[in-house]
Amino acid sequence: MNRTLLHTPEGVKDCYGKEYAIRRLVEEKIHASLLSYGYEDILTPSFEFFDVFSREVGTIPSNELYKFFDKENRTLVLRPDFTPSIARCAAKYFMEEDVPRRFCYHGNVFTNTSALQGKLCEETQMGAELIEDPSVQADAEMIALVVDALRSAGLSEFQISIGQVDFFKGLCEEAGLPSETELALREYISGKNIFAAQELLEQAKTPSEYAEKLLQIGNSFEDHGNFTALRSNVKNERSLRALDRLEDMHRLLEMYGVSEFVSFDLGMLSKYNYYTGIIFKAFTYGVGRPVATGGRYDRLLSHFGKEAAAIGFVVQIDDLIEALSRQKNLPEYEDQRVIVFYDSHDAGQFRKALEEARELRKEGKMVVLTPASAQP
Amino acid sequence: MNRTLLHTPEGVKDCYGKEYAIRRLVEEKIHASLLSYGYEDILTPSFEFFDVFSREVGTIPSNELYKFFDKENRTLVLRPDFTPSIARCAAKYFMEEDVPRRFCYHGNVFTNTSALQGKLCEETQMGAELIEDPSVQADAEMIALVVDALRSAGLSEFQISIGQVDFFKGLCEEAGLPSETELALREYISGKNIFAAQELLEQAKTPSEYAEKLLQIGNSFEDHGNFTALRSNVKNERSLRALDRLEDMHRLLEMYGVSEFVSFDLGMLSKYNYYTGIIFKAFTYGVGRPVATGGRYDRLLSHFGKEAAAIGFVVQIDDLIEALSRQKNLPEYEDQRVIVFYDSHDAGQFRKALEEARELRKEGKMVVLTPASAQP
Repeated sequence: MNRTLLHTPEGVKDCYGKEYAIRRLVEEKIHASLLSYGYEDILTPSFEFFDVFSREVGTIPSNELYKFFDKENRTLVLRPDFTPSIARCAAKYFMEEDVPRRFCYHGNVFTNTSALQGKLCEETQMGAELIEDPSVQADAEMIALVVDALRSAGLSEFQISIGQVDFFKGLCEEAGLPSETELALREYISGKNIFAAQELLEQAKTPSEYAEKLLQIGNSFEDHGNFTALRSNVKNERSLRALDRLEDMHRLLEMYGVSEFVSFDLGMLSKYNYYTGIIFKAFTYGVGRPVATGGRYDRLLSHFGKEAAAIGFVVQIDDLIEALSRQKNLPEYEDQRVIVFYDSHDAGQFRKALEEARELRKEGKMVVLTPASAQP
Repeated sequence: MNRTLLHTPEGVKDCYGKEYAIRRLVEEKIHASLLSYGYEDILTPSFEFFDVFSREVGTIPSNELYKFFDKENRTLVLRPDFTPSIARCAAKYFMEEDVPRRFCYHGNVFTNTSALQGKLCEETQMGAELIEDPSVQADAEMIALVVDALRSAGLSEFQISIGQVDFFKGLCEEAGLPSETELALREYISGKNIFAAQELLEQAKTPSEYAEKLLQIGNSFEDHGNFTALRSNVKNERSLRALDRLEDMHRLLEMYGVSEFVSFDLGMLSKYNYYTGIIFKAFTYGVGRPVATGGRYDRLLSHFGKEAAAIGFVVQIDDLIEALSRQKNLPEYEDQRVIVFYDSHDAGQFRKALEEARELRKEGKMVVLTPASAQP
């Protein structure tokens, strides 16, 4: 027998028995949190036209997309990310509306990640998107919902780092940086590559006063929502408004009772170009990647012809399960199936066994009706 | 704006709001039925190595598979059908076991159906597989479970047609048909193409006595599980054993109380070559295809190196929803979300609104907290 027959390709796996039952419990807890905040389930296809995820959208880089062609030679893509699909739906089905809409989703995404040497990888994501609400209250709801969802899944030790790209952008404007320099600098700072950032700013002949402030962004952490020190560093409106908004949000998060899970990191700048306001990542120990990420993307929907604010987040289910497992915090699961045996040579006894099974099922029990010969 | 941006490729669609909420209710009902019979959830990847679905497995024809290549140039396939994947898992994880195992699944399949002019199509399936139980009791359980699952989903008027490929195969052996003729004849009879079947049998110089009996198979219907008339037509052991087994099963289905949903059609022969015993299809009005199909495939697991009996079925969720919708039997759904408004300019009022929302959520309510400006 061909040995590969029993194996799954790299980048994917099977899940069954107790492991899958526990995973479903975790997913149900998260789903219940999403529903409790009034989010509505939405289902989009596993593949879409390439343009939904194109470079202008600012999602995953094109070389990490899994692309193929239809019979008319149009490029299709296995979805790498739900957000552009939900944005497309919001534009398509609610083009003329301007009241807030809440969506949540659960499904798989596909990426050709370079980290896996270009192997196609399938992962499960659950997440939420809040469309048509530009307010700081919407920002706070998203953070609070991430906290509730992760806690309901059993995660207790985690921290949500919150960034705000406008603080950085305002400072770049104030310093008069050209946009290519800004983009490169963003990459270096978000990658904590301070030497490269320093060299770049020197080459761009950035005034030393600003070079210093820009480099400090990589170390701008704040746990208590008090930005007085940072505030004294900037003069431009955009950066100051970003700090005002973060302070407002922090007060709301205190009302939600979740501020202890939150810290601010103004050097956190996403590789996804579609974020326009806050971005955030939930970190815990036991896994290398954040278990949840999100942010505000007020210009993404305009790509689909609708002007609407939007904010969302995604929970990486595979990473969350991995973290819960390493932290020994997976939910308890007990196989509650009842086994009823029958004698396959005795029709009368089968009838009795079947009656018993049916009665138990009526009571809501899970019943395996199986031949006595299968008794261990 | 590029108009295709808002559109999904042909063969797939979005689902949201009330429509999706109702669809999830239907799926939950079916899932509850599967669990009540002791089936365990299993999750397999959306794509697998080509060999899992190869011609020897007898699943969907190769030209209807969506194929692609990994970096090592191995052929991968987006799954067109769950059964071979579950068989692979049963062989991989339970190779040394011989007690019955029950699996159920829920997910999407992908086919390049010629009916859709080669367009890649994505559909949702839910189903069950019972491994390592060759008994007629297992056959009856599967049929009863299909009936329970469809009824729980709200379907009331449907009929399950049951075929048994061994009756046909025994008669072909008795008539001395070469295997190519048998395969061609199977296709004609299952397609109700009696003229082509007649011509084929004439060309093969089949004795007229047998030609007549073989052609009659296309009209061998039986609603009451009494095969006396058919029995007198055949002499071979294989066909007679097939009829014995159907009679035994019919008695069991009477015990289950589901025999009114069942009829027998010995001319129903599947295009899937992996079926070895009964096959069945659940028909209802309002859709052109069966809403559920299944059968016994006792040799499929040997392709994966394990000798084990197996039987399973799949429910086509999209078709079932379509049928329920046309029959006006979709479950009732009411949006039970509570809306709590807040004044975005009044922090004190927001605090009160948030408290109210949190209390309601604690009571299990789904609560949308939204600015008063969004009030219609």
